[in-house]
Amino acid sequence: MEHLNKQERMEMWETIQQALINEQIDQFRAEFIELHPYDQAKIFEEQTEDIRFLIYSYLSPEEMGDVIEHVDRDSVAGFITEMIPSFATDILQNMATDDAVDILNELDKNKVASFLTLMKKDAAEEIKELLHYEEKTAGSIMTTEYVVIHLEMTVKQAMRHLRKEAPDAETIYYIYVVDTEKKLAGVISLRDLIIAEGDWLIQDVMNERVVSVPVGGDQEDIAQMMRGYDFLALPVVDFQNHLLGIITVDDIMDVMEEEASDDYSKLAGISDVEKFGDTAWLSAKKRLPWLVILLFLGMVTANIIGQFEATLDQVAILSVFIPLIAGMAGNTGTQALAVAVRSISAGEMEKKKKWRVIGQESLTGFITGTVCGVTIMLLIAFWYQNAVLGILVGISIMATLIVATIAGTIVPLIMDRLHIDPAVASGPFITTLNDIISILIYFSLATAFMNLLVG
Amino acid sequence: MEHLNKQERMEMWETIQQALINEQIDQFRAEFIELHPYDQAKIFEEQTEDIRFLIYSYLSPEEMGDVIEHVDRDSVAGFITEMIPSFATDILQNMATDDAVDILNELDKNKVASFLTLMKKDAAEEIKELLHYEEKTAGSIMTTEYVVIHLEMTVKQAMRHLRKEAPDAETIYYIYVVDTEKKLAGVISLRDLIIAEGDWLIQDVMNERVVSVPVGGDQEDIAQMMRGYDFLALPVVDFQNHLLGIITVDDIMDVMEEEASDDYSKLAGISDVEKFGDTAWLSAKKRLPWLVILLFLGMVTANIIGQFEATLDQVAILSVFIPLIAGMAGNTGTQALAVAVRSISAGEMEKKKKWRVIGQESLTGFITGTVCGVTIMLLIAFWYQNAVLGILVGISIMATLIVATIAGTIVPLIMDRLHIDPAVASGPFITTLNDIISILIYFSLATAFMNLLVG
Repeated sequence: MEHLNKQERMEMWETIQQALINEQIDQFRAEFIELHPYDQAKIFEEQTEDIRFLIYSYLSPEEMGDVIEHVDRDSVAGFITEMIPSFATDILQNMATDDAVDILNELDKNKVASFLTLMKKDAAEEIKELLHYEEKTAGSIMTTEYVVIHLEMTVKQAMRHLRKEAPDAETIYYIYVVDTEKKLAGVISLRDLIIAEGDWLIQDVMNERVVSVPVGGDQEDIAQMMRGYDFLALPVVDFQNHLLGIITVDDIMDVMEEEASDDYSKLAGISDVEKFGDTAWLSAKKRLPWLVILLFLGMVTANIIGQFEATLDQVAILSVFIPLIAGMAGNTGTQALAVAVRSISAGEMEKKKKWRVIGQESLTGFITGTVCGVTIMLLIAFWYQNAVLGILVGISIMATLIVATIAGTIVPLIMDRLHIDPAVASGPFITTLNDIISILIYFSLATAFMNLLVG
Repeated sequence: MEHLNKQERMEMWETIQQALINEQIDQFRAEFIELHPYDQAKIFEEQTEDIRFLIYSYLSPEEMGDVIEHVDRDSVAGFITEMIPSFATDILQNMATDDAVDILNELDKNKVASFLTLMKKDAAEEIKELLHYEEKTAGSIMTTEYVVIHLEMTVKQAMRHLRKEAPDAETIYYIYVVDTEKKLAGVISLRDLIIAEGDWLIQDVMNERVVSVPVGGDQEDIAQMMRGYDFLALPVVDFQNHLLGIITVDDIMDVMEEEASDDYSKLAGISDVEKFGDTAWLSAKKRLPWLVILLFLGMVTANIIGQFEATLDQVAILSVFIPLIAGMAGNTGTQALAVAVRSISAGEMEKKKKWRVIGQESLTGFITGTVCGVTIMLLIAFWYQNAVLGILVGISIMATLIVATIAGTIVPLIMDRLHIDPAVASGPFITTLNDIISILIYFSLATAFMNLLVG
């Protein structure tokens, strides 16, 4: 029995690496082919260009295709384009259509066109069909390799059909049933199929209540559905309910990871998902858009403070609390924003009354505002021995926290209403908006109560 | 053929609601039982307490169990405790053990003990065994309802065994093979099993390279593994490689969602995952810990600025740029932090050299710092007609962005080294840390070049 623990994996890695360096093709193949493609991909990604070219010559296009399917999506384009084009084409036309499409989507259009020209006609057709679906829709993540059976087959016929199709299908655990017009009529799980008697008709044992998704459906909604219903696959249909493809749970896990990374990056103000593998230039390019916007917004803030120069000149100590107040506003806004964005993207907003949510968030802001306001008031009153300053900062914090909490809730709600992804209302934006609000509140109050402060 | 689109779902919902209000048990059951448990749960969650008690009396414990399994995890404890204890017990002992354990984990210890006393002995034993695994480990999310076959069975015997066990098993698509000592010896997919000849031996057709996870393994690592290998289930073993349970992909999807929400909430500085359903008090309680910490950190910042009072008195305009500089530092630090946290939690850090990453981030900081520094310098020089002030703020921004980027990278790396979840180094913390750094840089520079500023 062979169970790959970390220790054993390291040893195997070592053996394979040694075989590659010594160019021992037989020994390399003997070890490498036995591994799961995911492990193969991990080893492959670590190699230098020279060794990669050795691997291309040691593996068949089918074998290399399994590796490429599990390679990190961000580096796959580089590998495909460095291969001999005919080898790359063989790989692409032998892998699952949806995976081939995913890879082609990473290449530039000229490269895609030349690969399609090199392919066999039917493979090229299948890929072309999937390529034209918009990114992040059901069409773009579905596969066309699935088993379909007919309403009037018997269980025995269906099983025979299944055995024949199994090696090529992406999944055989849900089998979709179509009628004579190729419209989706039902579904039967392999589990139910193997329990059923051989001479029963499919239409009598299948489940007619099949949940399907439209080809233009959003991948995030589909992920939520799959998670809710605990399905392993979902059929994709057009407007006339014709079966076009299926989406399997392994692709949905990738979607979930992608969407989570996306939301997370946006909250941090990064325009595109970024990884440690990116070069410094690429990282900078992804981070600069927000930073430059913030720079200009920061100039607005500076300008607002400038308006209160007279106040500042009289009571210089006021400026000491600017970062504290702006910081609290920014953070409380981000908290409210995060809750709202997650709730909206988890589909929890539909059933809630928006006004009730806003009312409740106002109350949350009132509670946090009161606690923080009173705390800071006492701190300043004792530390700086200045009760008036303490009350001023305390009230500012309280007002600021209420307004910032509401702003953090309302902005994503408005964006959702306008059909903009609320995650775009990222952390930095709400932070700066609340910076401005908080400074306006603080200095307005200070100016109004100037007599008391200088008195 | 019945395909549930939104329109139809609304109509069905209406019918069911009507049947409930009119207390028509037959009509309610006729419609409700046909729905997928996920849809049933969605309907159930919307009901008032009175109607919920009607539903409890209309459904059998098995039927109600299916509903409860799909109810939102945060509200499930409330539903279970409002039922008659014997009914709730029946539900718990009839549902998949891992789901029952998940629910019991939401209840307080006394309640759990009393439910366990009411249960049948063997059901209680199974649940107790799972209950003692630590939260977020493989043991806590695995199920003990799986099909296991023996090395020496024939394919035909295995299929017969499978047909018998299928109705109770969580999944039958991967069948695990054990030896005489009940140690995990291999795996065979149902797909391979149905293609195999009936008289072959399992040990000849099974895959011996079975990937398993230790019972104490972290659920986030397991999710990553499942996603990488595209498995639908993973076996859980103890130190002696005895098969203890399996983890299925549907539970892993919930783990992925939970971990993503968790990371996201922490980046926003919320101590615990929060939802729109929470009361204002609960929300405030989850947000206040960070806010109060920030308040004290803000006082530190205020104190630091206070140290430069002499500088501020001479050049009051300096305070105008405090929010801009602190804001830029906070945001750039959060960007770097987000990239680092995601990369660490995606397991990408292992293979990278830490010093290279830090070097690269420094370069990124240098690029963004230069671009933003030069931009702000020009803006201020023209806007305020003050070249010296422009150069001062520009250099401050540049230095700040470099340091803040490095801080945002190093802090999570250090936490990871100390085996603390790097996501704890949340946005607010890094923001405030960078606020302080940026203000120190800004005022130190201003004080050093005071002659030029007032000159």
